[in-house]
Amino acid sequence: MRTAVDLPKAYRLINHGPTVLVSARHAGRSNVMAAAWVMALDFDPPKVALVLDKATFTRELILASGHFAISVPCAAQARMVTALGSHSGRETDKLADHAVPLLDEPAARSPLVAGCVAWLDGVHIPEPEVEQRHDLFVGRITGAWADARVFDAGRWHFDRAPAALRTLHHVAGGHYLAIGDPVE
Amino acid sequence: MRTAVDLPKAYRLINHGPTVLVSARHAGRSNVMAAAWVMALDFDPPKVALVLDKATFTRELILASGHFAISVPCAAQARMVTALGSHSGRETDKLADHAVPLLDEPAARSPLVAGCVAWLDGVHIPEPEVEQRHDLFVGRITGAWADARVFDAGRWHFDRAPAALRTLHHVAGGHYLAIGDPVE
Repeated sequence: MRTAVDLPKAYRLINHGPTVLVSARHAGRSNVMAAAWVMALDFDPPKVALVLDKATFTRELILASGHFAISVPCAAQARMVTALGSHSGRETDKLADHAVPLLDEPAARSPLVAGCVAWLDGVHIPEPEVEQRHDLFVGRITGAWADARVFDAGRWHFDRAPAALRTLHHVAGGHYLAIGDPVE
Repeated sequence: MRTAVDLPKAYRLINHGPTVLVSARHAGRSNVMAAAWVMALDFDPPKVALVLDKATFTRELILASGHFAISVPCAAQARMVTALGSHSGRETDKLADHAVPLLDEPAARSPLVAGCVAWLDGVHIPEPEVEQRHDLFVGRITGAWADARVFDAGRWHFDRAPAALRTLHHVAGGHYLAIGDPVE
């Protein structure tokens, strides 16, 4: 059901602005956080930009490992996404606490969250000055996958699948809008 | 019908990931371009990050004027958004060619597009190295407004208004998804 997405089309997995989960692993510790402030930055090679607050443990793991992953969650996971955006993994194991299931994807360097509808695996491109001044990070995408029930042939097809598989778009305070139907 | 949005809540106008219009004015020339690669970067003072290709005339106007605006278009404007994303304003007056109506908002320094559902007016924060390397720009938001039919008390309320007022979320090639309903 999970299919690889051609890298030059990887930007399409986040182009419509979903809230995502950002994850990283280093020295045996993993963490995952919710993030609405993520966007595509280039097509080929695909790059992304994301905002990582200095307080986040995920930022520390990305800086230490040089790698990160983005998982695109769906409406069925709204409660988990809010929980992962509300606590820090610095003192606790968030993946265990919230029973976050991980995918077994050998080609990915960072943990991917199961039950999501798309995944991007990436390498951190250091930009120390804007990281420090604006919490703004840049990465290059090296692997991309999607759930073929909702993304196929380079396009999202949410109208063919259960509503629970629609992407989440956070407004504020755990209030999400689901993505809607195509505009004709 | 247009109401001012408190600056610390301005991020909510783009937090759900809509495709936007980026505009600027300098020395009597104005331009507007479509952009899916825009995100919030901070709450208070509100900042945004956006991607501006070196080929775009809007980038030139922003660098020259030090100012920019973001207008959040709706489903009724899909055709205009695609047109504004398909042509460069370098050789032609896109606002005249596509009959783009502008708002009369004295507090905004850059042109705001009428018929949209939210607007952010901002000041460019120069970051020359990432601008050059990644086409990545940072700005501070100094004014924010929304159409009270769909944004009120810090929240979007698309389900109360006609579908034509829903925000546009670009996938690729002029194919958009409209934002959907709240996730319970």
